[in-house]
Amino acid sequence: MTALDDHSVRPTVTTGPIAGSEKVHHEIHDPATGCVLRIPRRRVGLANGTHIDLYDTSGPYTDSTAAIDPRAGLPRTREAWAARREPVGGAATQLAWAKAGLITPEMRFVADREGMDPEAVRAEVALGRAVIPANRRHPESEPMAIGKRFLVKVNANIGNSAVSSSIEEEVEKMVWATRWGADTVMDLSTGQRIHETREWILRNSPVPVGTVPLYQALEKVKGDPARLSWEVYRDTVVEQAEQGVDYMTVHAGVLLRYVPLTARRVTGIVSRGGSIMAAWCLAHHRENFLYTHFEELCEILRGYDVTFSLGDGLRPGSIADANDEAQFAELRTLGELTHLARAHDVQVMVEGPGHVPLHKIAENVRLEEELCGEAPFYTLGPLATDIAPGYDHITSAIGAAQIAWHGTAMLCYVTPKEHLGLPDRDDVKTGVITYKLAAHAADLAKGHPRAQEWDDALSQARFEFRWRDQFHLALDPETAQAYHDETLPAEPAKTA
Amino acid sequence: MTALDDHSVRPTVTTGPIAGSEKVHHEIHDPATGCVLRIPRRRVGLANGTHIDLYDTSGPYTDSTAAIDPRAGLPRTREAWAARREPVGGAATQLAWAKAGLITPEMRFVADREGMDPEAVRAEVALGRAVIPANRRHPESEPMAIGKRFLVKVNANIGNSAVSSSIEEEVEKMVWATRWGADTVMDLSTGQRIHETREWILRNSPVPVGTVPLYQALEKVKGDPARLSWEVYRDTVVEQAEQGVDYMTVHAGVLLRYVPLTARRVTGIVSRGGSIMAAWCLAHHRENFLYTHFEELCEILRGYDVTFSLGDGLRPGSIADANDEAQFAELRTLGELTHLARAHDVQVMVEGPGHVPLHKIAENVRLEEELCGEAPFYTLGPLATDIAPGYDHITSAIGAAQIAWHGTAMLCYVTPKEHLGLPDRDDVKTGVITYKLAAHAADLAKGHPRAQEWDDALSQARFEFRWRDQFHLALDPETAQAYHDETLPAEPAKTA
Repeated sequence: MTALDDHSVRPTVTTGPIAGSEKVHHEIHDPATGCVLRIPRRRVGLANGTHIDLYDTSGPYTDSTAAIDPRAGLPRTREAWAARREPVGGAATQLAWAKAGLITPEMRFVADREGMDPEAVRAEVALGRAVIPANRRHPESEPMAIGKRFLVKVNANIGNSAVSSSIEEEVEKMVWATRWGADTVMDLSTGQRIHETREWILRNSPVPVGTVPLYQALEKVKGDPARLSWEVYRDTVVEQAEQGVDYMTVHAGVLLRYVPLTARRVTGIVSRGGSIMAAWCLAHHRENFLYTHFEELCEILRGYDVTFSLGDGLRPGSIADANDEAQFAELRTLGELTHLARAHDVQVMVEGPGHVPLHKIAENVRLEEELCGEAPFYTLGPLATDIAPGYDHITSAIGAAQIAWHGTAMLCYVTPKEHLGLPDRDDVKTGVITYKLAAHAADLAKGHPRAQEWDDALSQARFEFRWRDQFHLALDPETAQAYHDETLPAEPAKTA
Repeated sequence: MTALDDHSVRPTVTTGPIAGSEKVHHEIHDPATGCVLRIPRRRVGLANGTHIDLYDTSGPYTDSTAAIDPRAGLPRTREAWAARREPVGGAATQLAWAKAGLITPEMRFVADREGMDPEAVRAEVALGRAVIPANRRHPESEPMAIGKRFLVKVNANIGNSAVSSSIEEEVEKMVWATRWGADTVMDLSTGQRIHETREWILRNSPVPVGTVPLYQALEKVKGDPARLSWEVYRDTVVEQAEQGVDYMTVHAGVLLRYVPLTARRVTGIVSRGGSIMAAWCLAHHRENFLYTHFEELCEILRGYDVTFSLGDGLRPGSIADANDEAQFAELRTLGELTHLARAHDVQVMVEGPGHVPLHKIAENVRLEEELCGEAPFYTLGPLATDIAPGYDHITSAIGAAQIAWHGTAMLCYVTPKEHLGLPDRDDVKTGVITYKLAAHAADLAKGHPRAQEWDDALSQARFEFRWRDQFHLALDPETAQAYHDETLPAEPAKTA
């Protein structure tokens, strides 16, 4: 029996197209496998008879022709691709294939999605400047790339906790977040039934799923960091990799000697993973077992093509602590580990802060690129000020747009409840939409070939008073339309 | 009988301190006039027995000891100061006094508010790099400065329209906006009773009030731009200056020959004032009367110390139109007019866009500073993308933080209803708070001496789990507390 056979769990998920859009697929032939790839797009038809196709992350849930059954899971599309290819030098990873000059179906899929040349995608992956997180055990996912030459991506965190939420809620949160544009989700569950929750999410997720295996490992030792061990951690990683987790946050850069560097900070260590590993290091006065066993970890991840997301356990938790010695010492270690992972043909991205004032943001990207060989940078915000709890989706979107423009490849969303409580459904949507607009602002500034046509289509509709087109082209058509309806007459203004 | 004697108007306004704060005044002696200046501060007492004083814009309304009667208006504090000083070279303006080396009570008040040396304030005003908008007929206002060496300021637009709202609502909107931090308000009323609405606002406003006189002038000619004339406009300016308007947006840079430059834009002319003047110029095929009569306008404004806000009638209304020839042609003319106004001892600021992608923002500030002799730049956002109607407070806060960091002195807020409808009370608050956090992010990045202590106090409270202190230090204590209450137990977590 699998988790999905548990009939006490009855997920219901949001389905149907986004207002004014329809799901279409662009079909292309993959010469390497002979498979037909179906690349999803969100098509917005306009009143003037034209249409615009937008990048789409929402999977079959927004396809009015798709049959949705969370108990069955999504179609295992990538299995057919995997069956027709061979490892290179013992490694069956996108990085290994890219280095060998091979264009995988995943690369071709990504190239079409982004309007790029497949060879350019391969080259970026081969250089380690982009990753395609795609565990072979998660064949339900639609391939996507994270890298500075690509559209800026957004991650949404979901996951239950000790105090709230059910499996049903988490599955719906994943569907809901990807509906509004989340490019990946991280399942940060810490409460009951972690394994089962993750199984439901993975089998139903059209986007890559990330985790922090340390959280589940800690549950296994009853929440006492001192009782953690490499063995418990390793088994957890294998368990999660077997399930199909696409990328894992690993706090291997929190070295014993760095912990004292945080002593005089305003906000010490705020990363949960960072705190756990610092506690373990201090309890045993030994080096971080994630660091000392890093090459074993590489071997495990390589077996599934799980992507490393090297965690920034010592990231600043306040403006005062930004860009300090603790943060950059850890970043240097993450650079060392990046090169080690690549030598094992394992894909790597690197996590970043956090809380950083505007004038210190560029330095973060510059250093990360220098130290980590341009591995995709994946940052949480950063918040550009600490004074606005309740509005931290906005304080962080300001920093996020800035850091993405400078080259950050993926942004971890922040919801209005950050620092205050657990996000509900509305908060998840607000967080995702806020981060999508920040990411898009960066895409525009970076000159991504497909970015501005969207703005132009909407602005043209606005100038011509094509209200319906303006709503349908909006990142959030429902809110745009609702706000319009509140104060002005519904018709004919809307079609004027 | 004045407008405030009209007993059919019954304003009720929000009063009382912001949660966790008390209003205090720092009293200093002004040697030039012998007056005692009482500079307001919002004091937040902390659980550890210390306190922090924050910049306060809210006037007597948040002072639990003040008697509030909208019918009587606020105390006319600055009248006593004005009685004790003489014009210089015929001009009784902050600029004239500053050039003459005199430190006015307004400058001393501002210096204390910002933690600066009074002589530095005088020097900035003398250079035209800062303005203190303070019509002698608006003695109720608390002096404030707009300039790049000062804290970044935020303006909130209010005003009734043909379709909605009453005098009562507009007075409360002013009180409400300044409660949350608006440094100035602009009354953009276009509907009924424009004069009376403005009178109520001015007599009760603790912050400078701006207007666009063109809007009222247009009402006087029944909404037909072609029927406008210098005479109608001039009389409107005198009427508003007499009432006490502190700064006026004047679209004198929309020259006849610039109008064709907008023909191939995606969004043409989106500024209301710009459209009106362009229509007048085309209807008569004559040069903009605001340009041709500019020196007469200077003489009028000088008589009251009304500050020019040179309007950007040709600002871009979309990402596509940013930094185009029409926009920069007008900016060059605004530069010419800035120097002309200064020669008349009239204070000047210059308005800016609008819609600008991140990579084109810095150029706006650089050009404005070069062409307009570093006159304070006052921008609307800019929106960093067009694709998120319903979230344009955020798309624009991203641009606003960026442009303010580069040197913009005041930001005109944008609410979530921008492009869609008229803001209600919640939208006004959301707009103001969003812009205050964007302004503060810029203050931090610019290294304003008092900016970071606020972040540090809040972060310290957060790290020590002093929940109440964290709420009270928040830009919006109510929302921070409400979000916390939603998902976690109320006590003892909050005092843990």
